[in-house]
Amino acid sequence: MNNFDLLNPTKILFGKNQIANLLKEIPENAKILLLYGSGSIKKNGIYTQVKEALTSYKIIEFGGISANPEYAVLMDALQVIKNEKITFLLAVGGGSVIDGTKFLSAAALFKGENPWDILAKNIAIQKGMPFGTVLTLPATGSEMNSGAVITRKETKEKLVMGGPGLFPIFSILDPEVVKSIPQHQIANGLADAFTHVLEQYITYPVNALIQDRFAEGILQTLIEIAPKIMKNNADYNAAANFMWSCTMALNGLIQKGVPSDWAIHMMGHELTALFGIDHARTLAIILESHYTYNFESKKEKLAQYATRVWNVTKGTTEEKALDGIKKTVQFFQSLGIKTTLSEYTDSYKGTAEIISKRFEERGWKGIGEHGKITPNDVEKIVKMSY
Amino acid sequence: MNNFDLLNPTKILFGKNQIANLLKEIPENAKILLLYGSGSIKKNGIYTQVKEALTSYKIIEFGGISANPEYAVLMDALQVIKNEKITFLLAVGGGSVIDGTKFLSAAALFKGENPWDILAKNIAIQKGMPFGTVLTLPATGSEMNSGAVITRKETKEKLVMGGPGLFPIFSILDPEVVKSIPQHQIANGLADAFTHVLEQYITYPVNALIQDRFAEGILQTLIEIAPKIMKNNADYNAAANFMWSCTMALNGLIQKGVPSDWAIHMMGHELTALFGIDHARTLAIILESHYTYNFESKKEKLAQYATRVWNVTKGTTEEKALDGIKKTVQFFQSLGIKTTLSEYTDSYKGTAEIISKRFEERGWKGIGEHGKITPNDVEKIVKMSY
Repeated sequence: MNNFDLLNPTKILFGKNQIANLLKEIPENAKILLLYGSGSIKKNGIYTQVKEALTSYKIIEFGGISANPEYAVLMDALQVIKNEKITFLLAVGGGSVIDGTKFLSAAALFKGENPWDILAKNIAIQKGMPFGTVLTLPATGSEMNSGAVITRKETKEKLVMGGPGLFPIFSILDPEVVKSIPQHQIANGLADAFTHVLEQYITYPVNALIQDRFAEGILQTLIEIAPKIMKNNADYNAAANFMWSCTMALNGLIQKGVPSDWAIHMMGHELTALFGIDHARTLAIILESHYTYNFESKKEKLAQYATRVWNVTKGTTEEKALDGIKKTVQFFQSLGIKTTLSEYTDSYKGTAEIISKRFEERGWKGIGEHGKITPNDVEKIVKMSY
Repeated sequence: MNNFDLLNPTKILFGKNQIANLLKEIPENAKILLLYGSGSIKKNGIYTQVKEALTSYKIIEFGGISANPEYAVLMDALQVIKNEKITFLLAVGGGSVIDGTKFLSAAALFKGENPWDILAKNIAIQKGMPFGTVLTLPATGSEMNSGAVITRKETKEKLVMGGPGLFPIFSILDPEVVKSIPQHQIANGLADAFTHVLEQYITYPVNALIQDRFAEGILQTLIEIAPKIMKNNADYNAAANFMWSCTMALNGLIQKGVPSDWAIHMMGHELTALFGIDHARTLAIILESHYTYNFESKKEKLAQYATRVWNVTKGTTEEKALDGIKKTVQFFQSLGIKTTLSEYTDSYKGTAEIISKRFEERGWKGIGEHGKITPNDVEKIVKMSY
């Protein structure tokens, strides 16, 4: 097991009717900016619940934070924060609204001239404006971690940011929100959380037995509840396990003491930036070719995964590992998620070269758990994903 | 899954040489009381490491906090805290030193007249004097939770306390300390952590799939590493997994959203108070009769446990459940731990009646996950444990 530091100060309020407890969690006299996305919270009743819980507060609203939260839109929100002297941010939405709020938390207290530097220079944020979240879409885990991903359409870039100052003060996870989520977004959430776990688990063994068991436990749970929640999003038990799995998949716990990969995400982000493909689906596009291309260095963990998660008992290490990859692709497909780039766009030619070039320009000379996947390798992997 | 709140603000520093990072974690200008136990830290080099890391601080020392930390001794330490105007407590030891430090953290800021009330009235502590820990003995999980158990020899009582103000600010977990732990204490730690998990897991199903998988993962890990660490306490990989398992077993995570039992602990504490038997061994004494007596209400989870943790695949639910109990007893015995009271003391007669009467006097009318185990049931369970 590798050395690690662990500190996660986010308070989770999980379960039915927890939104009513918002009042207890926000500082008195806070001037709140309520941030949300497309407005679905006004249709599904969550907006009303939030407003009813916070009648005693001064609240300004800012809607329209879309999937892949856009830098230009967030800069408008930042102006509102400054003009209205906001002191507390409340994200009501999925990972995109929460990620956007994290950027704003950082930008509101940023001393530099250009907030874009937070992303471009990946400045670790030690202190942000306090914020809480009401999660409406389980998927990214952003509700209990300190990272975010922000997109800039102008330059077709999608960059990560974070730091110890960017944990939510609290996050409210009411699984009842799941009943208003469209099936394709539930599929995205399942695939996103599943891949988050794999990025922290399919690397190489370091004798971190607990971390492996926890990772496998989240994967087993997602596999168990996927058909139930895809069939009936009003199944509370399935929704609760779905929601808690997504949070545990990326709240930092299972990555402590082990190597992480994240190459699938790095390549996937480029596909979203270039083609607007849903984040989770970009992961499903890249995963098979990434694991196939890097088979030798990952086969031990792939075989363990196949055995413990998919009950593959027969075959050599290599055969089990291959079976693990196959079963993962089939799992994505069972969710209605297509796993090759050409199924999403006709103009896929040249994509591998573009992404490889971008990695080169950014100085990303070696990615993955060994830091050895070069831009040239990236080009080959993306090409295998067409 | 049941509703829950989760907040665990303890920072963990895990791994080799982490003691050297103490300096970064303690507030500048702190006046530190260093608390320890029998003095083994002066033999195994940990004391020197701690002192070397903190040369720039004013440190007062208080040793002699024994297993089952004793109220009278702690009251002496409290006097030192007041006389010396201590501002930060540093526990260097196992669960007993840490638990004693938690009591002191609470007592140092307690407004009432008699600090014993904290225990007798089980007052939830909202704010204590800040403290950190350097763990020298993996077992109780006290390093990452906000509970403690304090003993008063005078009245032969062992009572629990806690509250959200009693999380350590930080805990340093260096698995290298395990190489200086005697085998019988390692056995205790394994049995203690194992039973902590079972108290939160062997109840009744509530569709908390992740929590079950995590509980099973900790148990599987303890089973896997037990023979290795019992054979060779210098096996770093086994020690690291042992240490992290003990912490994860009782840091609150696996108990969120599920019922808890804790009846084994409540009965076990009495055996320690009456006979001075090691805490972990009292759990091993009570467990079999508790699960046998409450078989009907626990058999579903017992069967799941037997299947997933011990790979019992054949038989009815009842047969699997019985096998689960048997395998647990065998596991304790494999650690050299005796599992009946009469193996520890000849004067066991009347114990069941004494414990039953105490529960009655304290108003503990119904314990366990259903709150239905009466003092009369307790008498029968303890008698079955002779």
